[in-house]
Amino acid sequence: MKAHTEYLTFHTKKRRELVHLTPTVEEIVHKSGIQEGLVLVSAMHITAGVFVNDDESGLHRDIWKWLEHLAPERGEDGEPIDYEHHATGEDNGHAHLKSLLVHHEVTLPITKGRLDLGPWQRIFYAEFDGMRPKRLVVKALGF
Amino acid sequence: MKAHTEYLTFHTKKRRELVHLTPTVEEIVHKSGIQEGLVLVSAMHITAGVFVNDDESGLHRDIWKWLEHLAPERGEDGEPIDYEHHATGEDNGHAHLKSLLVHHEVTLPITKGRLDLGPWQRIFYAEFDGMRPKRLVVKALGF
Amino acid sequence: MKAHTEYLTFHTKKRRELVHLTPTVEEIVHKSGIQEGLVLVSAMHITAGVFVNDDESGLHRDIWKWLEHLAPERGEDGEPIDYEHHATGEDNGHAHLKSLLVHHEVTLPITKGRLDLGPWQRIFYAEFDGMRPKRLVVKALGF
Repeated sequence: MKAHTEYLTFHTKKRRELVHLTPTVEEIVHKSGIQEGLVLVSAMHITAGVFVNDDESGLHRDIWKWLEHLAPERGEDGEPIDYEHHATGEDNGHAHLKSLLVHHEVTLPITKGRLDLGPWQRIFYAEFDGMRPKRLVVKALGF
Repeated sequence: MKAHTEYLTFHTKKRRELVHLTPTVEEIVHKSGIQEGLVLVSAMHITAGVFVNDDESGLHRDIWKWLEHLAPERGEDGEPIDYEHHATGEDNGHAHLKSLLVHHEVTLPITKGRLDLGPWQRIFYAEFDGMRPKRLVVKALGF
Repeated sequence: MKAHTEYLTFHTKKRRELVHLTPTVEEIVHKSGIQEGLVLVSAMHITAGVFVNDDESGLHRDIWKWLEHLAPERGEDGEPIDYEHHATGEDNGHAHLKSLLVHHEVTLPITKGRLDLGPWQRIFYAEFDGMRPKRLVVKALGF
């Protein structure tokens, strides 16, 4: 049985950004030497997410618009929403809600030494409150 | 240590459909011979989901109505929403958003050789853009 | 290879409640003796969830308000929504939807014998229909 763990650090230029992770996770799976197992890809922060979907820029714009609609930073008047969390001095209440909506982790299969994804499945790190260093853990377990 | 992998293909008659997977996953767990471990049930497409909830038809209608409200195919005027993703020729932007909302995978425990679910927990494949063959992977890992 | 399984039972005083689980899961990981692996924390009921986020009371109030907005028990008139699920005699349709939204399980990494969380990541059991005994399973797998 084997385990292989790597930590990635993202420091996005924008507060909101998608980072395509598939090649990086494929490389980590390759390095792990695991033929059969599972790999966990998990944000280590509470204002970020990880998801699997299409690598298509129009869809990505749809996703951002949708996330802002369901977990808004700003109200219909354009002003920032006064989340109770902001009483702590933070201004990122919406980013916590977006993280809950999208989820912070995915578990993926490793089969015959490869990341076993469908033809259009791509892994994304979703940054909801960036412009500072934030970590993600990739942990493969198997044999 | 053991791993056991099976691929299921669904070709639903309707574009939106729930497929009850619990007996199938129980059978796969049995075939795996794993006594203690985890089993991943994961859609291999980006317009489908997997979730655990009740097998109750009224609730299922509530879930469909709720999904359509939060990740709509059509606006209040009944017309299809013009997602940016549709510039690619696709018409399934809503199905990608429903997949993000529901999630494409669940990880379940295997204990004493059995799928270790609560009394009302049932596993469903949720098809958001069917009427074509789509795959799902079930991967059990343990000993 | 090792597996370690524990069942927790919650009987919350209120119908809706968050229970902070991090110290309990850390203790279970310690007892498992696993140095490298994964731990699944999964509600065994379909009207509860498990999530990872901040242990901050203002944020928790934001989360409850947000969940009630996206998966409401009551309409804008203050009356309970008549979900189709309620034809069974239940009154907890909203709790099933909240469970779908938040998700019923998380998978977490174990590294060097410890739960490998980021600095602000805390695990919560989210009860959406409590005041009765409800179970959760924690299953660690690794070596």
